[in-house]
Amino acid sequence: MAGVVITDVGPRDGLQSQQAPVSTEGKRTLIEALWAAGLPAIEATSFVSPKAVPQMADADDLLPSLRVPPGRALSALVPNRRGLERALRAGCREVAVVLSATETMNQRNIRMGLAQALDECTATLLEARSHGLATRAYVAVAFACPFEGRTPAPRVRELAQAMADAGAGELVIADTIGAASPVDVREVLDELLPVVPVERVGLHFHDTRGLALANAWQALGMGVRRFDASIGGLGGCPFAPGAAGNLATEDLAVLCTQTGHATGLDPALLVRAVDVASALVGYPVGGRAMPWLRRSAQHASAEKQEEMK
Amino acid sequence: MAGVVITDVGPRDGLQSQQAPVSTEGKRTLIEALWAAGLPAIEATSFVSPKAVPQMADADDLLPSLRVPPGRALSALVPNRRGLERALRAGCREVAVVLSATETMNQRNIRMGLAQALDECTATLLEARSHGLATRAYVAVAFACPFEGRTPAPRVRELAQAMADAGAGELVIADTIGAASPVDVREVLDELLPVVPVERVGLHFHDTRGLALANAWQALGMGVRRFDASIGGLGGCPFAPGAAGNLATEDLAVLCTQTGHATGLDPALLVRAVDVASALVGYPVGGRAMPWLRRSAQHASAEKQEEMK
Repeated sequence: MAGVVITDVGPRDGLQSQQAPVSTEGKRTLIEALWAAGLPAIEATSFVSPKAVPQMADADDLLPSLRVPPGRALSALVPNRRGLERALRAGCREVAVVLSATETMNQRNIRMGLAQALDECTATLLEARSHGLATRAYVAVAFACPFEGRTPAPRVRELAQAMADAGAGELVIADTIGAASPVDVREVLDELLPVVPVERVGLHFHDTRGLALANAWQALGMGVRRFDASIGGLGGCPFAPGAAGNLATEDLAVLCTQTGHATGLDPALLVRAVDVASALVGYPVGGRAMPWLRRSAQHASAEKQEEMK
Repeated sequence: MAGVVITDVGPRDGLQSQQAPVSTEGKRTLIEALWAAGLPAIEATSFVSPKAVPQMADADDLLPSLRVPPGRALSALVPNRRGLERALRAGCREVAVVLSATETMNQRNIRMGLAQALDECTATLLEARSHGLATRAYVAVAFACPFEGRTPAPRVRELAQAMADAGAGELVIADTIGAASPVDVREVLDELLPVVPVERVGLHFHDTRGLALANAWQALGMGVRRFDASIGGLGGCPFAPGAAGNLATEDLAVLCTQTGHATGLDPALLVRAVDVASALVGYPVGGRAMPWLRRSAQHASAEKQEEMK
């Protein structure tokens, strides 16, 4: 069976909502731990307004200081062409744009209508491509919107297609608030896959209702091979009950490995990266599979030491 | 879409491995909370040797004291005909037998070979039926065995069929150690469903590797409508890292509800039952969906109070 490409969005989506400040040095350490664990792609930061997202205020310093191992992808989120300019100055080689799928979400978030937001996104994509950058394009609130409820699947298809037409390399369909069920995933993919090549489709789940991994399994069954996930399930806010984090990278890795999909990830080094993430945010993070993964890693390490005697 | 029947095995499978003693009164309170939440079926206890499983030593006292609301099912596990006799004396109307699917597991657990264990199981089933009892039959370690590794799917089919022939009402295919992936679930069901009516098939998952809910989704997609689960994910041992509990009833309930499968469960009263379970074992239990469920329940309750003003 084909391999699965996991983009770890922990350094961006996972850290942006943390209450306590996270140092630039700490972010670098986490990203190094993710490279060490074998992650093929990392979304490192976001060139948004430092006022809106203080945790990402160090993007201009962080990004140029990051190592990108050969064959790996390091991306940064850019909200618009101004953000793209900053990303280019920082030496960024891959950017992600975000388009919310509903009128109200765009109005509330960026004070634009949906049509204007789409124009800004496609313009940013075209500009990024003219500089030779690789691109990802998020369709946010693609399953449900906190203001408008269920998002119509045909609209998700139209928006994804418009961004594919503007040259987006990967189309990331995002369940921003963690409201999707596997039935919703099936419905959206049934709309999308006839018009966008499955190789370019990625899915981004949050685990608010505990369904993220079941959703991933539904998508895997329909041929999707790109997923966002966040080390340790980083994301949401530990102090706000109900604000659950992203799908945990290590849980997705276990699902993939156990169902015959290679990820290139090293289980013991994933456990180490989760520990780095916990130290960084100051409270224990970790997906559902962590106790088992940790035990397996210890067991494997003991066996290796035995062999070396 | 058809409804799903969830058997809460928390009072048996969830409590049997607790370190601290749990009072008979506390078990009654938990079972009442589960009835209140709408559970259609509860596995209340186990008539095993009190030496082997001290937490179930009160089965003879507990069972006769339990209320069974009309249309609900209250069952107890019986390891053999001696256990069945105790269950009958306690007024039990539904029993579950257990057959491990591997030679070694049977030898280690009950000092019998697989063939002899199957004989004892079918004899117990026939005896139970002769008393007019409803029956469930577990095939334990049906996906993997801690001693023999992967369990061959054709053997699971043969054992399930033998117990179906002996009149077992429900055939519960159990991932006792939580090693199954959705691909394994598909493989076993592909073997089983051609020979056993899907209405009589139940699945029992543990969440050791975090895959229990993805497994449930795979089984739902193949038509299975009976699942064991445990309130709060009770089970395993909180002091033994890696010994994860059962699939949490509340997580399965969310998956079902969000995918259009009725369960008859009340979300707010499920949250209450989880709180009762936490109080009983003395540490917080709860599935992945708990923060969201708790918030939803509070929201619904506030709205109801608003309406009543």
